[in-house]
Amino acid sequence: MALKGILRSGLIQLRVLDLEESVDFYHDRIGLTKVGKLGNDRFMLKGYDEFDHHSVVLREADSPGIDFMCFKALDEETVKDVIAKNEKFGYERYEVTDQPGFGTIQMFKIANGHTIGVYSEVELAEQKPMTCNPKIWDKEPHGMEANLFDHALLAGPNQGECVNWFVEVMGMAITEVLYTEDKNGYICTWLSSNTRGHDVALLNFPDAGKLHHFSFQLSGWNDIGRAADIMARYNIKIDAGPMRHGVTRGQTIYFFDPSGNRVETYAGGYEYFPDAPLREWSADRAGEGIFYYTKELNERFLTVLT
Amino acid sequence: MALKGILRSGLIQLRVLDLEESVDFYHDRIGLTKVGKLGNDRFMLKGYDEFDHHSVVLREADSPGIDFMCFKALDEETVKDVIAKNEKFGYERYEVTDQPGFGTIQMFKIANGHTIGVYSEVELAEQKPMTCNPKIWDKEPHGMEANLFDHALLAGPNQGECVNWFVEVMGMAITEVLYTEDKNGYICTWLSSNTRGHDVALLNFPDAGKLHHFSFQLSGWNDIGRAADIMARYNIKIDAGPMRHGVTRGQTIYFFDPSGNRVETYAGGYEYFPDAPLREWSADRAGEGIFYYTKELNERFLTVLT
Amino acid sequence: MALKGILRSGLIQLRVLDLEESVDFYHDRIGLTKVGKLGNDRFMLKGYDEFDHHSVVLREADSPGIDFMCFKALDEETVKDVIAKNEKFGYERYEVTDQPGFGTIQMFKIANGHTIGVYSEVELAEQKPMTCNPKIWDKEPHGMEANLFDHALLAGPNQGECVNWFVEVMGMAITEVLYTEDKNGYICTWLSSNTRGHDVALLNFPDAGKLHHFSFQLSGWNDIGRAADIMARYNIKIDAGPMRHGVTRGQTIYFFDPSGNRVETYAGGYEYFPDAPLREWSADRAGEGIFYYTKELNERFLTVLT
Amino acid sequence: MALKGILRSGLIQLRVLDLEESVDFYHDRIGLTKVGKLGNDRFMLKGYDEFDHHSVVLREADSPGIDFMCFKALDEETVKDVIAKNEKFGYERYEVTDQPGFGTIQMFKIANGHTIGVYSEVELAEQKPMTCNPKIWDKEPHGMEANLFDHALLAGPNQGECVNWFVEVMGMAITEVLYTEDKNGYICTWLSSNTRGHDVALLNFPDAGKLHHFSFQLSGWNDIGRAADIMARYNIKIDAGPMRHGVTRGQTIYFFDPSGNRVETYAGGYEYFPDAPLREWSADRAGEGIFYYTKELNERFLTVLT
Repeated sequence: MALKGILRSGLIQLRVLDLEESVDFYHDRIGLTKVGKLGNDRFMLKGYDEFDHHSVVLREADSPGIDFMCFKALDEETVKDVIAKNEKFGYERYEVTDQPGFGTIQMFKIANGHTIGVYSEVELAEQKPMTCNPKIWDKEPHGMEANLFDHALLAGPNQGECVNWFVEVMGMAITEVLYTEDKNGYICTWLSSNTRGHDVALLNFPDAGKLHHFSFQLSGWNDIGRAADIMARYNIKIDAGPMRHGVTRGQTIYFFDPSGNRVETYAGGYEYFPDAPLREWSADRAGEGIFYYTKELNERFLTVLT
Repeated sequence: MALKGILRSGLIQLRVLDLEESVDFYHDRIGLTKVGKLGNDRFMLKGYDEFDHHSVVLREADSPGIDFMCFKALDEETVKDVIAKNEKFGYERYEVTDQPGFGTIQMFKIANGHTIGVYSEVELAEQKPMTCNPKIWDKEPHGMEANLFDHALLAGPNQGECVNWFVEVMGMAITEVLYTEDKNGYICTWLSSNTRGHDVALLNFPDAGKLHHFSFQLSGWNDIGRAADIMARYNIKIDAGPMRHGVTRGQTIYFFDPSGNRVETYAGGYEYFPDAPLREWSADRAGEGIFYYTKELNERFLTVLT
Repeated sequence: MALKGILRSGLIQLRVLDLEESVDFYHDRIGLTKVGKLGNDRFMLKGYDEFDHHSVVLREADSPGIDFMCFKALDEETVKDVIAKNEKFGYERYEVTDQPGFGTIQMFKIANGHTIGVYSEVELAEQKPMTCNPKIWDKEPHGMEANLFDHALLAGPNQGECVNWFVEVMGMAITEVLYTEDKNGYICTWLSSNTRGHDVALLNFPDAGKLHHFSFQLSGWNDIGRAADIMARYNIKIDAGPMRHGVTRGQTIYFFDPSGNRVETYAGGYEYFPDAPLREWSADRAGEGIFYYTKELNERFLTVLT
Repeated sequence: MALKGILRSGLIQLRVLDLEESVDFYHDRIGLTKVGKLGNDRFMLKGYDEFDHHSVVLREADSPGIDFMCFKALDEETVKDVIAKNEKFGYERYEVTDQPGFGTIQMFKIANGHTIGVYSEVELAEQKPMTCNPKIWDKEPHGMEANLFDHALLAGPNQGECVNWFVEVMGMAITEVLYTEDKNGYICTWLSSNTRGHDVALLNFPDAGKLHHFSFQLSGWNDIGRAADIMARYNIKIDAGPMRHGVTRGQTIYFFDPSGNRVETYAGGYEYFPDAPLREWSADRAGEGIFYYTKELNERFLTVLT
């Protein structure tokens, strides 16, 4: 198998202020499939084009934000390898076994205040892509027609160390970097475990464990436009877009869920291979890297995180 | 690195009847970049979005068809591993060193009459994607705006053995299969070394070393339409499409180059991961697998190969 | 007002074999809005982006086909003018008053065996585009997202005389013609009352009163692709497409409703103005005029009418 | 003919600071066709999909802005009618005969400080759409692939009187209005002579004869995205977009030419008919009417005119 080790980002647990309202939002507007309740305060959802049991968990809480983000490994050997390689970093590890359909998830508390999980065992979902004489979809996609949970941008301190952890422990590749003005460090780093431009990105930020945004994959620019029409119709607050990123070339809209979490609908982007040269951005071109068309970051984009 | 071993299809050498006319066709219409002449009878080209020195070589010959198709490996270790694992199959191997910009290519004569190469060393092209504060392209794409050489469908006998070679020696994954009517074998098999639905497909066919088609990646359905407009304008013979495949979900047009080689412009398709279940097609649904909309294969599609 | 007289095709009554199944088809798949029953054997529908009470009536009958097609006039003065100018042609006229929401429709039995109506009075529909701080749609479009009833291709004898009637009586413009081989007549003529490439086309055909196809407007090529995906999923029989017409430049799919009526989803096409030169097609290029990409008409297209 | 009188906006003369640089910009980037020099200080261009001799004239001057905007009439009878009906308004009229390929243009100095022309006679361009077995285009479109000059938004005082002039003298229809806060007047009015959402819009503004923007038609949302990619590549200053308007539903980007004139690439929008109800916007929803997605006007949009 040419694709080994860590395969992709596969699970995210979000904090939302009102569970029922949020489930409706992610189902009706984003177009996720409802998988079911998880205890009293959580709800599982998934993209219609994902095979695995679920990929998004919403948890009702007093403040928005992210609980954890997890990566699917090809096999348990990979999981063991991650555990072993984490020794060098000494990040606290614990096991989570309460995600229905999932085997044990190994959780690591990394130095930017985020919790990153790794698992290899997960059941197939009831609603999943057809595989026997398959139609491209079984039930018509709805809402923004999000295919799948794609990536997240995690903010916090100690970014350099965390980048090293993703590279050395998780075996991921740095695809693009945004240098600080003195070029001695990175403002932001994009990392991939497959051919996506990124599965996760790490933003240098003083507060630990902050979520800048997480992202759903759409099928193309036309679906980005359709998503914007849906946002406009239902008065969903758009932060920026429709536009393109210079970084990853992805086409995008940033908007806010009812709890204030920044969500992205994302499409396109190049096909990454590990023999590609690193793409590098200088600090004075940060605006262009993120907001490729207008070349200007808005203040809200830099300061509002959950 | 999570993506290891064989990375992708990276080089194809085609036979064409008139070199000059063919270079114009692949440059002006398909939108490839001219890299330069190679001896008296060959010409090198590449997609505007490829980093490597070149990906397509046209060779003037008395009959159309394919000389060989090669795969890029991450490193020389992979190449050595392929050589070692080929021992079990005992396929003839020889070395090619005449492709400018490329290190040694290990060529294997596999049992369907095709020559498959593996290499890890290749220089970056002069015209390649930007990497320092990169624009999404440097020079405006032209013609059909082919991004890159994507895959080929190789026809010949002994398909099952060749599939095993791609799986065991090259480490590739079977993504989809089309069973024979008795379900004891495959009419066609699709194989991937990365997250594409396929890098190469193998079609059972009595004549050895035959090319059914080879394919260029476009950016989406809208570019498929644009490509069709260009074909119509310049009276390029369309075999089928615009349409979608059931297999891989790719959006597509099949057409013929001036020498009669079947070429495809291809876009979309799902993102494959090795933990996805195998997609299976029964013989009675072959039409739908290939021609997803009309569900009927045309006679030409089944019989015209080069 | 610069747009006067006959404004557009506005109403069509179709014969279908099973009313309930057909209502489901036009609602669920084409995406029309249900307006309501009309007596025991008819059902009214409309496109989500139409203001008028309804635009499509399905009537249960023993054989498929078209009952009549009607045009909206700006005012009653236009209707009177049509009645007066019809005198020269002497086509039988009668009044229809049983279409809910519509004033009197003046029906004319023209020489190709078709019944063409004209009306100016029609109530606004309950479900219609918003007009006060309007969203681009109120309720999300569904299915193939047909905006509106666009045009029909009516087949029958005496085409030349009927063309004259549309020009002289209805004040419509000939936008394109397909000449017979001897160039003494037309195989097909396209006529417009506004800036569309056509509101109606007339095909020379031995049998009177035959429907070749009628058409719904989609928003673009991407929606043509989405419509094709829906057709594939629900095994709706596609006649041809996705493709483009040379005539009108429209992007299109022809398919069949459950009764065997040929339906078209149509998008794009140029903006016609009456100062544009006539577009002319010679008989030997008919294939390209209709099937712009493949340049070949299929047999079914030429022989299957209802 | 159902489409009579004034047909469409057909000619605009712009002031630019550097003629050569501007010709390159409108040719290379917007994708217009060069028609030729006009005297020492002017240059004629056209959209590739326009039949008429030219539609855009650039004039080198000390300050940017608009000289005049002209409308094509179906016939000289319409021109005479406009002259006659202008008597009631008493706007100064003069004749222009120096536009190559055009007959006499009747120019009217209307009360918002703008000059509006009317003409019916114009020669066909050398480069124009094919009409004999036509391809959808003859020479491949380039750059942003602007089809045609579409409309302009003219700013100045006495808006209400000017609206009346366009309605009573030119016979145009008001398609949408944006009311002032007290609902006693209009901030902006959109007017159409055909089925476009607008050919011209009038903005209430203290300074006379000001140009807010003028607009080129693109073929759809995908071309809007492509245009944005071109703007990004060549560092063309984007004012707003890609986005959609609530008014007209058009998909759009506003950007600046090298002289500071605001230009728009515009696609889509509904098909207007004179029997459609007026679309009305209240002052508190102006942001949504113009910037449908973000619902917020930027300061520059309200204050920068030429």
